Amino acid sequence: MTKIQDPMLSFEEELNMYLAGNSIDCVIFGYEHQELKILLLQWKHHPVWSLPGGFIRKDEDMNKAANRVLIERTGLKSVYLNQFRTFGSVARSELHKNAQFMRLDLFKKSEVFSAKTIAWLTKRFITTGYFALVDIEKTSPKPDFLSAKCEWKSLKDTPPLLLDHNDIVQKALEHLRIRLNYLPIGASLLPHKFTMQDLQKLYEAILQKPLERSNFQRKLLKLDFLNRHEKQMTGAANKAPYLYSFDMIKYEKLIKQGIGFSF
Amino acid sequence: MTKIQDPMLSFEEELNMYLAGNSIDCVIFGYEHQELKILLLQWKHHPVWSLPGGFIRKDEDMNKAANRVLIERTGLKSVYLNQFRTFGSVARSELHKNAQFMRLDLFKKSEVFSAKTIAWLTKRFITTGYFALVDIEKTSPKPDFLSAKCEWKSLKDTPPLLLDHNDIVQKALEHLRIRLNYLPIGASLLPHKFTMQDLQKLYEAILQKPLERSNFQRKLLKLDFLNRHEKQMTGAANKAPYLYSFDMIKYEKLIKQGIGFSF
Repeated sequence: MTKIQDPMLSFEEELNMYLAGNSIDCVIFGYEHQELKILLLQWKHHPVWSLPGGFIRKDEDMNKAANRVLIERTGLKSVYLNQFRTFGSVARSELHKNAQFMRLDLFKKSEVFSAKTIAWLTKRFITTGYFALVDIEKTSPKPDFLSAKCEWKSLKDTPPLLLDHNDIVQKALEHLRIRLNYLPIGASLLPHKFTMQDLQKLYEAILQKPLERSNFQRKLLKLDFLNRHEKQMTGAANKAPYLYSFDMIKYEKLIKQGIGFSF
Repeated sequence: MTKIQDPMLSFEEELNMYLAGNSIDCVIFGYEHQELKILLLQWKHHPVWSLPGGFIRKDEDMNKAANRVLIERTGLKSVYLNQFRTFGSVARSELHKNAQFMRLDLFKKSEVFSAKTIAWLTKRFITTGYFALVDIEKTSPKPDFLSAKCEWKSLKDTPPLLLDHNDIVQKALEHLRIRLNYLPIGASLLPHKFTMQDLQKLYEAILQKPLERSNFQRKLLKLDFLNRHEKQMTGAANKAPYLYSFDMIKYEKLIKQGIGFSF
């Protein structure tokens, strides 16, 4: 949902600034305490959770609308944000129409929505999914005007979401998993320096399965985008693991080219 | 552009069956005479070329609309067809508005379009790009009701296209090139059996640069998705190249998993 941009406009007047029938939804991934998390909103007048999303202004590029939503909800600028899929099934508009709380609970309670506004909001929408990988510590989650909460939730404990948003999260996750096979991932999710175990835990959180340590280390080192630094001095020196960081020049090159092989 | 589905309906009445403001465009790649080709339409009342595309019926999934366009234009069913990007910049709608031929030449000449229809057609559209890889020999290209020609054009000789369609082709090509680095490509574009040189020529046509023969062969064989068959008996036996085919089980697995590495 969008934020009211101009307090002098009614919601109905404001909706007129947006393209009807198109929306964007953002799956914002973060990583904390060895868990993959996503940023979710809980609605004000109804306990349902949803993805941060919004509409596209008539004078706004769709990609900029996604960026605006990301900035508004997380406070983060210049973040890796990418389209991953557009969802245009008829079934999702049926969900829309049938969402009792949208037609009745929320709209009737709030009493700010005209019949025209409700018709606008419940028509068939085609939504483009974007995904972002962000550093949770750098975010300051902020609800929009329709929501009471904006919080990081562990992906494992994702609640039932509005409409087809659980499906959108699932598709974003599949996208991220496939990317793990051919792109470097982690620069936005891990601290600057990390151990090989930290990196493995991140990959395990994304893949949701345990990986074999020496095999993982061998594969990752072979890709040659990690710099090795000093040892992490916390326990016995002989058992202390090395710290690594991403070689951002090689990392960026692999982001463009893929790590399969390049011709 | 869509085909008139029901001859009893006026174009204006028919447009009402479609979602306003959303369209799909298909970049259909084929391969012939060692050249990468795309399927293009030339408009009836104006010599401009465009991608095959269409609108989305109000009761139709967006992916099905893309499939419908592909079937209508090529005669091919069950073809590898994939979303690659949604184009939603404001600039493309400006192109739309400024497309002289859309507002004047075409519409005035044809005299079948009401002001309302023109307004519908020239509003801001968000379009989802799909790409397909097809066997040219199996296609029977067919114009839609607004176009006079539907032809395979060499990618190298792509004419100036309607609106941002050249850009859409370019993005589809970039997408295809990145995929070459982590996915097997070729099963839809080459005959069942082919030589290593045929495969190399295909990769060169997509990448638009020459590749080094022994390096290419080594990389491709290492991926282990080719079956080697008898030699191609055309010249001297000692110089005859081996024929290969795709091992479709391994090929399909790699399509899902990527060829970077899998965890």
